[in-house]
Amino acid sequence: MEQESGTRRGRRGRQGARAAEAAPRPVEYRNLINTFPPMAVFSDDQIAAMHDTALKTLEDLGMKVLSPEARRLFAQGGAQVTGEMVHLGRDMVEAALASAPKSITGRAGARDRDITLELGRLVFQPGAGAPHATDLKRGRRPGTGRDFRELVQLTQHFDVFQMMPPLIEPQDIPTPLRHYFTMEAQLTLSDKFPFIFSRGTPQVMESFEMLRDFRGLSDDTFAAEPQCYTIVNTNSPRTLDLPMARGLIDFACMGQLSIVTPFTLMGAMAPITVAGAITLSHAEALAAITLTQLARPGAPVCYGTFTSNVDMKTGAPAFGTPSHFQASLAAGQLARFTGLPWRSAAGSASNLNDVQAANENQMGLWGCLMAGATVVIHAAGWLEGGLSVSYEKLISDVEVLNMIAELCAVAQAGTDEIGFDNALSQVEPSGHFFAAPQTMERYATEFYQPILHDYANFGTWTERGAEDASTRATAIWEGILAADARPEIDGARIEALQSFIAHKTAQGGAPPES
Amino acid sequence: MEQESGTRRGRRGRQGARAAEAAPRPVEYRNLINTFPPMAVFSDDQIAAMHDTALKTLEDLGMKVLSPEARRLFAQGGAQVTGEMVHLGRDMVEAALASAPKSITGRAGARDRDITLELGRLVFQPGAGAPHATDLKRGRRPGTGRDFRELVQLTQHFDVFQMMPPLIEPQDIPTPLRHYFTMEAQLTLSDKFPFIFSRGTPQVMESFEMLRDFRGLSDDTFAAEPQCYTIVNTNSPRTLDLPMARGLIDFACMGQLSIVTPFTLMGAMAPITVAGAITLSHAEALAAITLTQLARPGAPVCYGTFTSNVDMKTGAPAFGTPSHFQASLAAGQLARFTGLPWRSAAGSASNLNDVQAANENQMGLWGCLMAGATVVIHAAGWLEGGLSVSYEKLISDVEVLNMIAELCAVAQAGTDEIGFDNALSQVEPSGHFFAAPQTMERYATEFYQPILHDYANFGTWTERGAEDASTRATAIWEGILAADARPEIDGARIEALQSFIAHKTAQGGAPPES
Repeated sequence: MEQESGTRRGRRGRQGARAAEAAPRPVEYRNLINTFPPMAVFSDDQIAAMHDTALKTLEDLGMKVLSPEARRLFAQGGAQVTGEMVHLGRDMVEAALASAPKSITGRAGARDRDITLELGRLVFQPGAGAPHATDLKRGRRPGTGRDFRELVQLTQHFDVFQMMPPLIEPQDIPTPLRHYFTMEAQLTLSDKFPFIFSRGTPQVMESFEMLRDFRGLSDDTFAAEPQCYTIVNTNSPRTLDLPMARGLIDFACMGQLSIVTPFTLMGAMAPITVAGAITLSHAEALAAITLTQLARPGAPVCYGTFTSNVDMKTGAPAFGTPSHFQASLAAGQLARFTGLPWRSAAGSASNLNDVQAANENQMGLWGCLMAGATVVIHAAGWLEGGLSVSYEKLISDVEVLNMIAELCAVAQAGTDEIGFDNALSQVEPSGHFFAAPQTMERYATEFYQPILHDYANFGTWTERGAEDASTRATAIWEGILAADARPEIDGARIEALQSFIAHKTAQGGAPPES
Repeated sequence: MEQESGTRRGRRGRQGARAAEAAPRPVEYRNLINTFPPMAVFSDDQIAAMHDTALKTLEDLGMKVLSPEARRLFAQGGAQVTGEMVHLGRDMVEAALASAPKSITGRAGARDRDITLELGRLVFQPGAGAPHATDLKRGRRPGTGRDFRELVQLTQHFDVFQMMPPLIEPQDIPTPLRHYFTMEAQLTLSDKFPFIFSRGTPQVMESFEMLRDFRGLSDDTFAAEPQCYTIVNTNSPRTLDLPMARGLIDFACMGQLSIVTPFTLMGAMAPITVAGAITLSHAEALAAITLTQLARPGAPVCYGTFTSNVDMKTGAPAFGTPSHFQASLAAGQLARFTGLPWRSAAGSASNLNDVQAANENQMGLWGCLMAGATVVIHAAGWLEGGLSVSYEKLISDVEVLNMIAELCAVAQAGTDEIGFDNALSQVEPSGHFFAAPQTMERYATEFYQPILHDYANFGTWTERGAEDASTRATAIWEGILAADARPEIDGARIEALQSFIAHKTAQGGAPPES
């Protein structure tokens, strides 16, 4: 209850008109430091016990590894291999954690888009890998090439997304050609750090080739630093399938980045407890990380987790729950234990961009932030537990991410900001600060300018059509797509890429492997 | 991107049916410990400089105090009083901070509803003091007595609200009788810690009388511990008006709790910077706290802030912004500096319960949590910057608050939870944990059970009517109101209260003073 609020809101700043005319407020969202204090859900002793149990799990129970080459690498490294089962010793895991780099620089299409992944940094990307796209204009549909390209452009538009994910699955593109399509879209419509699916060696190697040539790199220069990344999900519990194992090996050998992510749902493919599920996730992540280091010591790899719970009444996955939040915190503690940069994830189970979707996504996001996640995946637009990406939700979540980015900047409280001379002593009791010197200096730049949130009062908002935030978000993404901004790229490189793709397409492409 | 997610969500737990039949999961939301790590926005030196500037503001610039009695108390305490201006010395403020209690127990209508206010505790209340009520069934309207009673019942229903606020203004009740109405509703429909408006001594004293008699207390017992609370807003900048000053004095003299809250909008009635606005807010809070301690040393009082920014393009208030978040953090640092329990606030500027409303409220809430706020006001249901309380938003925000309350509980990671023997070693690679002993023991109680969030897949959700969360929330509040649950209260006490009210009403009531 604020007894004064009703009478005060009538006042309007005289700076209003001037601020509207001023230049846009400068922002810096490309290189974020996570300023939020890390939160622990378990004690250091409990975390050590979880790590120890994960090592015991790898040693005594082992991992099922479907790739013969991966089993060979594990065996060469000293693991006990029996059939498809691989039992890893603690020393192998410890050696891998020692050789994995603690800081990774990802090379984007432009130097000012490069990203640094290390503990303490903060990188966002929108929802990824969804079979469907949805928006209020065209409804929910199986993802298409058009959707993929549009979502690449929306991701490119917002600086708060520092990486390009595989937003939706372009299902109208034949699978042997799909990697050409997604690479062409990422390289020509964006200059952010690109993603490559691990769907077998042929597609991965062709993708590397396209990227290398597009950037004009030699093989050695390409392999010297990560130019792209993949995400590898283990098949929990304790299974590493063929394309995932191949991806880890291929990316490691070529010096490219793997983000290892067991996707473990508590009560289903993982233990029902946070401690149990994260112990399993940790074991699987350690096994995958170990494989990268056996393939090439020093290969860039991120630790990862994506652990939430199922609804035990229906078995349906839930996101943005207390268990999801605590799982992120526990993973963060284990990541700090290893020293590796790591990824976590937000997300929502809602079927549309509504209050549930907003609340779940933000709850999951705060879990990631307070867990000290380096990369937050599915930070915007992800609905239905990953079955769709929503254009409107992407916009409304960007508003939240922008505000988080603002909170990552250092706030000032010097003499000018405290302002005894230029503000506090300049205004009489019950007066206003509109004309105070401090206000005059800062009115155009002091506050975050929302992209979507509307502060109009009820009457004005009603006159304008009483649109909710989702509806307003439609006009925003439409405007971005209509502008069709593209990064500056040498036309010859685009032509060469398209020529390569045409040639490969004529040959039938490269089918995915599984 | 979670490459496995699509194929896995088809699995459904066999526990589903059983869990649905099990008893409700026990929860404990009445006595929350804030487990979130406090976040600092400024350095300790900067906070000390802000405190020092606040003292200098009170000393050199002074407060305008409209109440002669308050000026007399200030003067008796050593302040320089010139006309309506009061200049407070540092020693007075320091003495007040020393005598104000650091832990306060608020007595509710039942012992298990009592609340403890001290740093480290966490108490929520829904949106308060709005002129309008709104819901999807009846639309937005000026608040009525019916709305007030209904919102009291909704607040009573959820354990995560530990205090009763003045939810909306029942505008159809004549102002000289309104305090009878709101007290009767709070006492007969709820047993939570009640609120009394500071609208002049006659209303306050009659409210105390109703409460004292309803609880069967003597004057001395009543005054010995806080039985109720008020919220006092200063009129920023640097003004304390008549009813607010009277409220501070009346509540202090009768041993009842004042929550002091300068409501400062950066760029309007406060400096445009977080540091400046919070310095002003701090100065005003210190002046009000000092008045309570001059009226009665040791009187229960909470420190408070509610500081957000205006949109400089329009002058409209904004909430859940980065500046709001940082202001909460800065206030938390100053509150810890004083050692007093303190209140902050969430809230939203949105005009309906949409994605903006959810995101703003949760953003503001996290600011309060990481600021270490003892009491979070407007934590649910508050729209339009306080001009309306939404029934649906109250429900959807409770979901968030319940999840926060879950995160305040200690998580377990013992041998049973890590579960090498009862889970990890019981399941083959690529198997599932549905039947693991650990799962069997915990499936009915391990996870938070949502009240509103829906995890049904898109097909099922569409068949059920494709309702968004706000629409579903309607059925929830309707169900609570239809159940019409009431606390167990001696009928004779209700009769005596109603008889008192009838008698006073016949005499014309007590008009508010200003």
